Amino acid sequence: MLISILTFQGFNELDSLIALGVLNRIKKPHWKVNICCPEDSVTSMNGVTVLAQSRLEDIPNSDAVVIGSGMLTRDIAKNEAIMGMIKLDPSRQLIAAQCSGTLLLAKLGLLGKIPACTDLTTKPWVQEAGVEILNQAFYADGNIATAGGCLAAPYLAAWIIARTEGLEAAKSALHYVAPVGEKEIFVDRAMKNIESYLFSRGG
Amino acid sequence: MLISILTFQGFNELDSLIALGVLNRIKKPHWKVNICCPEDSVTSMNGVTVLAQSRLEDIPNSDAVVIGSGMLTRDIAKNEAIMGMIKLDPSRQLIAAQCSGTLLLAKLGLLGKIPACTDLTTKPWVQEAGVEILNQAFYADGNIATAGGCLAAPYLAAWIIARTEGLEAAKSALHYVAPVGEKEIFVDRAMKNIESYLFSRGG
Repeated sequence: MLISILTFQGFNELDSLIALGVLNRIKKPHWKVNICCPEDSVTSMNGVTVLAQSRLEDIPNSDAVVIGSGMLTRDIAKNEAIMGMIKLDPSRQLIAAQCSGTLLLAKLGLLGKIPACTDLTTKPWVQEAGVEILNQAFYADGNIATAGGCLAAPYLAAWIIARTEGLEAAKSALHYVAPVGEKEIFVDRAMKNIESYLFSRGG
Repeated sequence: MLISILTFQGFNELDSLIALGVLNRIKKPHWKVNICCPEDSVTSMNGVTVLAQSRLEDIPNSDAVVIGSGMLTRDIAKNEAIMGMIKLDPSRQLIAAQCSGTLLLAKLGLLGKIPACTDLTTKPWVQEAGVEILNQAFYADGNIATAGGCLAAPYLAAWIIARTEGLEAAKSALHYVAPVGEKEIFVDRAMKNIESYLFSRGG
């Protein structure tokens, strides 16, 4: 299971790295989660430089792809070299977009009539691309999921785990990262966000 | 306002980078948040390499210090060279420790009789150091705060913002990062965790 977390210049640290942390709760030899970048390193919206663990060339080999968010996403959406490298196939890959990552999904033509989640800042740009935006943290239709608000990133990660390793594995990963004293309430809310979409194949 | 987030080899991405993301919601020229490391770069428990934004020499100049967590914290606690560089002064600095960061606080002798929060894995080691561990996400006594569970990191960050920029600034930062559709409930729960400790000077 290769999971690529697409992380661009100007990235939001929370979106890429919360997903990475939760996904890495699965401790199996075949399970590999990479920060996947267009360059050898990327620098976040707050000046944190992270080295790439893989490059965009790895996207087609990935079983799941998380599209991270950031403050330069509108520029990336216009960058034909980068957009041409994001080769996604929802018939065989799980595809999850976080916040402004939803804009890239829309521009890649992968949403079609599927409604989506994003953050409040990105919302008008995705709407302009013709996509209905939902006032909720998480939505999935078949193999495509979207989330809105940085701290919805655990929901996206849990959805990928639930779809591949099962519900209990997803709950266990969420339980580990949840605040002490709030673990049950956190897991319950997270699972309520994703459970009803786990077995849908609509759209 | 200089805030140093101490981040060591083997660090937990969530702990250091959630704090960094939330703290950077304050957009003021004097407000600077740095990933502060013992070396030029550190590699996380899941293989993500991040470049240092500052070094441990900057700790005494910091107005607030967040001690991050990781899987090598017990080794760091025994590393005299590193521990000797962590020069903290709770009489003039806000000091916040996340998960296994609480072990370093205890080993530095800064907790004394103050109870503390940490994650479930670190709990026995901190207890062995003579500290009472609370079954809750956040606790503060005067200028020293501790949190347990990766996703309690927003509470630590919000405490620093509330103590320096006020309650409304803390709520606004939390609101921004919260999941869409859950923003009010998230901010309410976070503020309930920290509010009762904001004006305490007990211990």
